[in-house]
Amino acid sequence: MLIVMNKQATPEQIESVVTEIEKRGYVARPIPGGDRITIGILHNQGPVDAAPFLGMPGVSDAISVTKPYKLVSRECKPDDTLIQVGDVVIGNGHLTIMAGPCAIESESQALTIARHVKAAGAQIFRGGAFKPRTSPYSFQGLGEKGLEILAKVREETGMPVITEVMDDETFDLVESYTDIIQIGTRNMQNFSLLRRAGKAQKPVMLKRGMAATIEEWLMAAEYILEGGNTDVMLCERGVRTFVSHSRNTLDLSSIPVVRKQSHLPIIVDPSHAAGRRDQVIPLSRASVAAEAHGLMVEVHHEPDKALSDGAQSLYPEQFVRLCREVHAIFDIFHPADGELA
Amino acid sequence: MLIVMNKQATPEQIESVVTEIEKRGYVARPIPGGDRITIGILHNQGPVDAAPFLGMPGVSDAISVTKPYKLVSRECKPDDTLIQVGDVVIGNGHLTIMAGPCAIESESQALTIARHVKAAGAQIFRGGAFKPRTSPYSFQGLGEKGLEILAKVREETGMPVITEVMDDETFDLVESYTDIIQIGTRNMQNFSLLRRAGKAQKPVMLKRGMAATIEEWLMAAEYILEGGNTDVMLCERGVRTFVSHSRNTLDLSSIPVVRKQSHLPIIVDPSHAAGRRDQVIPLSRASVAAEAHGLMVEVHHEPDKALSDGAQSLYPEQFVRLCREVHAIFDIFHPADGELA
Amino acid sequence: MLIVMNKQATPEQIESVVTEIEKRGYVARPIPGGDRITIGILHNQGPVDAAPFLGMPGVSDAISVTKPYKLVSRECKPDDTLIQVGDVVIGNGHLTIMAGPCAIESESQALTIARHVKAAGAQIFRGGAFKPRTSPYSFQGLGEKGLEILAKVREETGMPVITEVMDDETFDLVESYTDIIQIGTRNMQNFSLLRRAGKAQKPVMLKRGMAATIEEWLMAAEYILEGGNTDVMLCERGVRTFVSHSRNTLDLSSIPVVRKQSHLPIIVDPSHAAGRRDQVIPLSRASVAAEAHGLMVEVHHEPDKALSDGAQSLYPEQFVRLCREVHAIFDIFHPADGELA
Amino acid sequence: MLIVMNKQATPEQIESVVTEIEKRGYVARPIPGGDRITIGILHNQGPVDAAPFLGMPGVSDAISVTKPYKLVSRECKPDDTLIQVGDVVIGNGHLTIMAGPCAIESESQALTIARHVKAAGAQIFRGGAFKPRTSPYSFQGLGEKGLEILAKVREETGMPVITEVMDDETFDLVESYTDIIQIGTRNMQNFSLLRRAGKAQKPVMLKRGMAATIEEWLMAAEYILEGGNTDVMLCERGVRTFVSHSRNTLDLSSIPVVRKQSHLPIIVDPSHAAGRRDQVIPLSRASVAAEAHGLMVEVHHEPDKALSDGAQSLYPEQFVRLCREVHAIFDIFHPADGELA
Repeated sequence: MLIVMNKQATPEQIESVVTEIEKRGYVARPIPGGDRITIGILHNQGPVDAAPFLGMPGVSDAISVTKPYKLVSRECKPDDTLIQVGDVVIGNGHLTIMAGPCAIESESQALTIARHVKAAGAQIFRGGAFKPRTSPYSFQGLGEKGLEILAKVREETGMPVITEVMDDETFDLVESYTDIIQIGTRNMQNFSLLRRAGKAQKPVMLKRGMAATIEEWLMAAEYILEGGNTDVMLCERGVRTFVSHSRNTLDLSSIPVVRKQSHLPIIVDPSHAAGRRDQVIPLSRASVAAEAHGLMVEVHHEPDKALSDGAQSLYPEQFVRLCREVHAIFDIFHPADGELA
Repeated sequence: MLIVMNKQATPEQIESVVTEIEKRGYVARPIPGGDRITIGILHNQGPVDAAPFLGMPGVSDAISVTKPYKLVSRECKPDDTLIQVGDVVIGNGHLTIMAGPCAIESESQALTIARHVKAAGAQIFRGGAFKPRTSPYSFQGLGEKGLEILAKVREETGMPVITEVMDDETFDLVESYTDIIQIGTRNMQNFSLLRRAGKAQKPVMLKRGMAATIEEWLMAAEYILEGGNTDVMLCERGVRTFVSHSRNTLDLSSIPVVRKQSHLPIIVDPSHAAGRRDQVIPLSRASVAAEAHGLMVEVHHEPDKALSDGAQSLYPEQFVRLCREVHAIFDIFHPADGELA
Repeated sequence: MLIVMNKQATPEQIESVVTEIEKRGYVARPIPGGDRITIGILHNQGPVDAAPFLGMPGVSDAISVTKPYKLVSRECKPDDTLIQVGDVVIGNGHLTIMAGPCAIESESQALTIARHVKAAGAQIFRGGAFKPRTSPYSFQGLGEKGLEILAKVREETGMPVITEVMDDETFDLVESYTDIIQIGTRNMQNFSLLRRAGKAQKPVMLKRGMAATIEEWLMAAEYILEGGNTDVMLCERGVRTFVSHSRNTLDLSSIPVVRKQSHLPIIVDPSHAAGRRDQVIPLSRASVAAEAHGLMVEVHHEPDKALSDGAQSLYPEQFVRLCREVHAIFDIFHPADGELA
Repeated sequence: MLIVMNKQATPEQIESVVTEIEKRGYVARPIPGGDRITIGILHNQGPVDAAPFLGMPGVSDAISVTKPYKLVSRECKPDDTLIQVGDVVIGNGHLTIMAGPCAIESESQALTIARHVKAAGAQIFRGGAFKPRTSPYSFQGLGEKGLEILAKVREETGMPVITEVMDDETFDLVESYTDIIQIGTRNMQNFSLLRRAGKAQKPVMLKRGMAATIEEWLMAAEYILEGGNTDVMLCERGVRTFVSHSRNTLDLSSIPVVRKQSHLPIIVDPSHAAGRRDQVIPLSRASVAAEAHGLMVEVHHEPDKALSDGAQSLYPEQFVRLCREVHAIFDIFHPADGELA
């Protein structure tokens, strides 16, 4: 249930509604919108009776929520969420490109790649310090040393950075270094981690699980918003199917569905979807044409020597081409004078 | 095995190689290329010894084929196949849009939609006369009456038409009316039908099976080429996955893979992939951005009254927008002056 | 809609109901049950009004059918279908084992294997004469020569035979030789073939498509029953998933679902599901424990020399063990004295 | 690489080999087998040279490991792992049945169900105290109160208990109460949790991820064994496919594959695979027929009132039948006098 307040509702009226909600044992969550406040009723079991609220001063309407998710839904918040990270804005009307190596391997590797991708047009630098690896015997990332290198990259290039957090234990550490916290595919339903991310002071990028429905994905984001962190972006990275010509099958229909159901931005990771360098540019172009709000792309100056996922990393010159081409597509639908869009 | 002839090879030299191949019990298939002839060796069991051919006059090289498919492969024919249908050319460098209703319902319905889609920019008219239906009790199409209406549409609008053939029994009839013969998803491995299509005098569009690998799909096309018909285009229409927010999951990574492995054009059908009107435009844009050679889109002027698949049919005005947007994307990569491409 | 007649309904009363149905433009199909006749109303578009029928003499009830399939459903025919093939009965209460090579290769191969499997307990001999092959260059079966060998096997061993039919063109030929007509996975929705099978005088085994839902599978069977052939058995053979440790993923939950929804027998093909010899016995045991009505198993005396699918064929001695073990499981639930069952 | 010692190898000889391995920067892990010690070499990057070890006293052989997993593999430990929990032994030759409600709801609910399932033949009681839920607004389990109830059940009935652990934070707490620690599907690749489980003093049951390959699953188990905990059992619970007639598709071919590749016991959870009560008994029978080492089954005395997953919970009398039937199947292959097995 959403209680929609009048545009002129006073703070006292809002407070009264919140009190009335909490008196019934529910949780009240005021959600600022364009020109009015909406108050979500959370943690109700079964339907809520609208009558008592409709009669209160300042209340304009009570809307029953038809989806299992609430805070992430457009029903709850019709305006697109825009996330500010340094000078970069992520969300509708913007095309944000994040790029960098799969794993941070050394300061020199990271800085070399960062300078390349910045020159090509990337706005955010990506790189793994803690790596989730199928095998306990594989390279697990540089850990805190990797985080320090990310901080160095930010200092040298001015680019905000994004890196993955793998567990509660290292969350504070990762949060203290990074600008955006990434939650990976394998942790999409690690509910403890989602709850911790709900308390974070930094934006979160939540990757889709490899066999997750959109509803499960949005419910996972709901955990973060429910915890109080509203700066959440989603990341489509392909789902596991019978197909073997790519590592995963990129599900681009998730973009229109997410954009319709939710106000959160949606980014696409074509590198992990494909698992092969030669599909990354076509899939990047397709993602932007389908109105993704951004891309996260793996780039390496020496992919053959990469400690992880080299086969899917673009060469720097390929990334230059990618940026040029996706911006050309984006510009069609977002012209300065608004003609075609 | 492919025997590559010199540019200057004489017809007699080519004939000698063919004879030599057939003497060994294989089938020889000369394949004209840009500036030279290549001769495919088919129906060999196990490897072929190159030595006897390499010594023959006019022979430049012998190439072992590493994929199970031959005639459809780029190894065999490096140049893109271009298919001419009336004034329309399908294949690399062209963007072909086929549109129309799922099923032909009446002359008036077909003509109304045909005029709409032609005005919006469609070059080829689609419409089912024989419909494969899950239930024996569903509308099965108008049959020959539907084919007559298609002929009428061609006559009135000048657009070539494409329609599905379902079996050997009605193949001659369908072939006599249509400009392009469509083989549907459920028949992708109907090998008798593929063999018959190999004898057809009309181009064939082969849709991907709903759980087919790219190799199986190319092998199905190989059946048609092996039969002698080289005018084959492929049609990606999504694969079946656990996903329920769309009817199928469109696998756009198939485009770069098919373009790399094969010389055949690849078309995308976003309507059957999505099964929902509101995903068709984003998926169409994505397909063209990923370098599909064309689209096949369902359009209906009264989708709520459609006898089949109304929920995925675009309204005419949506199709106008679709055409404008996909051409804008296509033009980026195929400018008159060749700048960006 | 099903019109259920009284137990004492006369042929004249039944005829009147049929006439009344046909007067409305529908098709009437009387279905004999245990002690009464039910009349199915087919080919109605939209709901049928029950009132006119309920008032007719001899009519006991009118039942609205809630599933898209009718003739295959238990609603329509509560009793299990039993199919008699020579001395063998297939269906509830029986465990039928069909075995033999993937493809008939020679008379000596077929007879050798047939004697082995008969001695081990197989009741029906399987072997392909027309083989659906992914590649046009693979062994396509012996054709009519293979059918003649099957007839020879029947003559020599007394076992009925089952073989696959691939198209309308060879249907008469296959039907004239075989005892059970198999329709393969790739043809599950070859509707022309299903219609032809509906006219056949022999029982049909319909394999599940590799990405078919149970509803689609039952609807495909509905085509055959609608054509007039009620001797149809279904064959589960696994569905295509992301899994690579077996060729397909055997979906044993289809057994309880089919048994509940339909009166048709369900057979399992563990050989094509697994694609690997070492999974065939465990999956066979599991299938019988889950109450499959039978098994179809590939056996070859020299699997390493088999012209197709040797890797999944059991050695004769493995098949002996399989028969002994599945019968031991079957006997638990079908004891002579009915104790545990 | 595995260094296989002689049967007569002395502790000093073993120690020398360990020292030699560690001198090279690897980790040495002695693995006791039936009559000899094998020493695993872990954390090597690239191949290890066998020569220096083969010449050492007490060394019988050096075996290169061909799979990415080591400690979980049969190559490394040919004998089946047997896990003792109270009086119950889990592993080859035993059939262990775990049963209970999805979630612990109250002491009275838990004790009522526990007495039912014990009387029917269950050896281990299951019940969730911390529940992973798709929605933050769903019942999340009773937490520590639930653990206390589990302890009460053990005290009253003598049955060991199994419950799920969801995060590092509550791991100590869960470990202090439970007899077997369950790691759920969504956490199969929560590597921090796996590492913590590797330090646990209690056996661990690791459920398969909903889109996990067997290799990924065994690698996840490898994390636990690598941490020092060798009492690990695996639990097959179905994979996500396009199928909708069951919640997941139970992949019984995983049983023969796991039994061949690994020495760890494998349990099946038919309740979560099916998601529907009416498939649980057939799938349980199938699992035991395919040689699972045990079952984990949801049972509730009032499933319609269950706070989670009631639709898949068996009624107590159905569970009685399940136990009787699966034991009858198990007994065929494990008779007292060993006749059929």
